[in-house]
Amino acid sequence: MANSSKKIKEIGEDLLIKRITKNLTLGKDVMAGAGDDCAVIKSNDPQSYMLLKIDSVIEGIHYVKSTHPSAVGYKALSRAISDIAAMGGTPKHAMIGLSLRPNCNVSYVTSLYNGLSKASSPYNISIVGGETTNCSKNGTQSVTISLTGEVRKDLCCFRSKGRSGQSLFVTGKLGKSINGRHLSFTPRIEEAQWLTRNFKIRAMMDLSDGLASDLPRLAKSSNCGYSIDTNKIPRARGASIDEALCDGEDYELLFAISSKDCNKLKASWRKKFPSLTLTRIGKLSPKGTEDPDLEGGWQHF
Amino acid sequence: MANSSKKIKEIGEDLLIKRITKNLTLGKDVMAGAGDDCAVIKSNDPQSYMLLKIDSVIEGIHYVKSTHPSAVGYKALSRAISDIAAMGGTPKHAMIGLSLRPNCNVSYVTSLYNGLSKASSPYNISIVGGETTNCSKNGTQSVTISLTGEVRKDLCCFRSKGRSGQSLFVTGKLGKSINGRHLSFTPRIEEAQWLTRNFKIRAMMDLSDGLASDLPRLAKSSNCGYSIDTNKIPRARGASIDEALCDGEDYELLFAISSKDCNKLKASWRKKFPSLTLTRIGKLSPKGTEDPDLEGGWQHF
Repeated sequence: MANSSKKIKEIGEDLLIKRITKNLTLGKDVMAGAGDDCAVIKSNDPQSYMLLKIDSVIEGIHYVKSTHPSAVGYKALSRAISDIAAMGGTPKHAMIGLSLRPNCNVSYVTSLYNGLSKASSPYNISIVGGETTNCSKNGTQSVTISLTGEVRKDLCCFRSKGRSGQSLFVTGKLGKSINGRHLSFTPRIEEAQWLTRNFKIRAMMDLSDGLASDLPRLAKSSNCGYSIDTNKIPRARGASIDEALCDGEDYELLFAISSKDCNKLKASWRKKFPSLTLTRIGKLSPKGTEDPDLEGGWQHF
Repeated sequence: MANSSKKIKEIGEDLLIKRITKNLTLGKDVMAGAGDDCAVIKSNDPQSYMLLKIDSVIEGIHYVKSTHPSAVGYKALSRAISDIAAMGGTPKHAMIGLSLRPNCNVSYVTSLYNGLSKASSPYNISIVGGETTNCSKNGTQSVTISLTGEVRKDLCCFRSKGRSGQSLFVTGKLGKSINGRHLSFTPRIEEAQWLTRNFKIRAMMDLSDGLASDLPRLAKSSNCGYSIDTNKIPRARGASIDEALCDGEDYELLFAISSKDCNKLKASWRKKFPSLTLTRIGKLSPKGTEDPDLEGGWQHF
């Protein structure tokens, strides 16, 4: 096999996943596998889908050694909840995989679980299982979350359901999450459920890698291009346009909606969520009309 | 909090789990959480439960650096399948968390996935998600499996459903799995489903830590003692009684059944599974009559 002696750090995660998933056989009950925010599975209930998500936070990447363990636990579970939100779903049951150094304090683990509880309790998520592994004395600690959810079939959002001409919106303000928001954000469960129940919204995702990475993914999945006005992107205090596009870890919602519903959406949103901004940043366009071409490499200026 | 400055290696995993789980709030839909082979959840289908499992294999503990990656993947998923079997269930959907060193070869990962496919395909398990994390250059690699399953409510087995006087059986032969069986075993899905459908068996578990550790767990969960004849324990070729009791990683079934059904069970089993032994090793007895007292420390002789 070509490239088989290459190291994973050389080919990167995207190509690795592509290489792996092309040989996997999926059952007919799998509506979406790897490639959307969650896997979507037909359940025994004809009205709803089951959602499945696995996600990890890693020391040195998503948090640092000095991050309070309660914040690590809160972030780890909230990221997975944000993926359930992106499908329009409700989170249900979590299992926790901890990879810890053997000299880790017991109080670190109990505090980490306090953070998990803080993230789970607003949604009545039950933590039903766990597994602790030893990453060795000099290894890198990590927290892996396996989370289930459910969503009404007719309200389930996929990245692939966008249509050319639809308007693109984002919730909240983007950029500079590293100043603290990346550890304390609120997953947009309530907002996503209100959106899908009150408007015909079927293409949505959460912004975890930054709009410049995530918008092209949604457009590509929907076989569309996009046209956005980068000056209109809602920026967190002190964030440049570049930072709002590229920093990542915003955990806000990006979604597409019929342009004729925009005014009604904006008015209803202001009443329902007065303290959270909702911004129309542009629209989906025919494939091949990406403007600006973020995927081709956002120009850092 | 007392003990909070202790290290996790000092208090051990059992006490750590106890410490963590006592503060968790479980929903009313959770029939069993941590403490059984799988978590058992009420589903939208009134006829069945959903099963959830998270489990890891760790380099240096469950396999060694030189173990073929295909065998690592096969073992990782088969262990979780064995836990689904122990509940009488059918495995459905898997998600895979890999923790790898950055200099790991791409071919290692594709081979590991070949092993996962080999384990999943006999049961049509769909691998619907994955996550790869970097355990750092000198870290310990691991594979974490999140697996769902389902089981008919009336056939679901719990560790807690044993009754004093019931006979105890084990499938297969125990001990010396380190000679190779721990990497190549077949999870007892077919056997477990046949057992629960044809006989009234409601207390079952899989033998992963060795009969000397696992039998006391089943008995304790069922509020029973036990009486076994250690000379009757079926031993793998070359295994001593001690090894059959304590080696672990057998991935065979241990279950309890009404003593009046023993003869019918033995005759039917021989016809259905002529190449796999089934052995009556003793019985459940009133609490406080553990004979021999394996939990108090099996005497290594």
